[in-house]
Amino acid sequence: MPAETLTPERILEATEEVLRRYGPAKATVVDVARALGVSHGSVYRHFGSKAALREAVTDRWLDQSHAELSAVAATEGPAGPRLHAWLAALFASKRRKAGDDPELFATYMVLAGENSTTVDRHVETMIGQLSGIVTEGVDRGEFAPCDAPSTARAIWDATGRFHDPGYAAEWSTPGIDAAFEAVCELVLRGLRP
Amino acid sequence: MPAETLTPERILEATEEVLRRYGPAKATVVDVARALGVSHGSVYRHFGSKAALREAVTDRWLDQSHAELSAVAATEGPAGPRLHAWLAALFASKRRKAGDDPELFATYMVLAGENSTTVDRHVETMIGQLSGIVTEGVDRGEFAPCDAPSTARAIWDATGRFHDPGYAAEWSTPGIDAAFEAVCELVLRGLRP
Repeated sequence: MPAETLTPERILEATEEVLRRYGPAKATVVDVARALGVSHGSVYRHFGSKAALREAVTDRWLDQSHAELSAVAATEGPAGPRLHAWLAALFASKRRKAGDDPELFATYMVLAGENSTTVDRHVETMIGQLSGIVTEGVDRGEFAPCDAPSTARAIWDATGRFHDPGYAAEWSTPGIDAAFEAVCELVLRGLRP
Repeated sequence: MPAETLTPERILEATEEVLRRYGPAKATVVDVARALGVSHGSVYRHFGSKAALREAVTDRWLDQSHAELSAVAATEGPAGPRLHAWLAALFASKRRKAGDDPELFATYMVLAGENSTTVDRHVETMIGQLSGIVTEGVDRGEFAPCDAPSTARAIWDATGRFHDPGYAAEWSTPGIDAAFEAVCELVLRGLRP
């Protein structure tokens, strides 16, 4: 296919497919170019290095749940149920990724380990969304006055078992939903005035 | 040294030393026997198999902080500060183990992966101590009435970042103490009536 139709998004899709097929240790830019039927030079015009390409595909993977979560964060109404819905949507999204395609999930765990800056930026985005919900809860008098960003980080930390990929093996065990609800309840109670 | 002085504790000490020296993949019962100057039959008289020996040494390692934590759990006075002190003592103990001897810590991470039943039992002991503090807090009217065991598990889960060895790399980062205090505060607020 002609190089002019080569968009960054198409390259990233092909990269994911190549990573899935060869694994993170073996996948190369040449494999990606071959999958697209273009020269590796064409790929390098969009992503200057193999590292840049791997970072971009990691970023895309992490971003996949952002839009859905932003929509939950932006809903109207009381902040408490919204916070619960946001945490449940995050857990569901991570669990889906881990359960639907465990090999690809393991691949992205390797890539995440290589791209800690990208992961940190993703976490900051997540905590920013939480912070917005906390601020609204305080403004509405539902939550006690607090420093919203640091409270948001505490909520992120306290719910790690339900979004940190290191716990993925536990996400299909019996009792995990009850455990999630118990932590959510404790956190929501902790926010009360 | 004569076999009659061979106690389980001495075998476990030697096992830890052998694990430290050879790593979990290579350490054998013969190495342990050689370190003690006894036959491997003498070791097998106390621990029936290599797996049993590895399980016992894992158990010993996990138990090392139990006594200290039990003492904190058993102190008199308000349950809130006691819960905070218990969580701080747990974090300090894990952090000390990870920081003082990172190689041995990594070795025990491997052993813990092999002995999940032992680890589960350790976690149940920890949650049992937490549950006792929660019950006393409820009895004293400091904490809201609740199902103490499931609340204790929620506290355990919510504070995982500060005791789960998977997070050991974060325990020396700046801001970790503030993060710990923020989660503790959220949890303690969540227990209020």
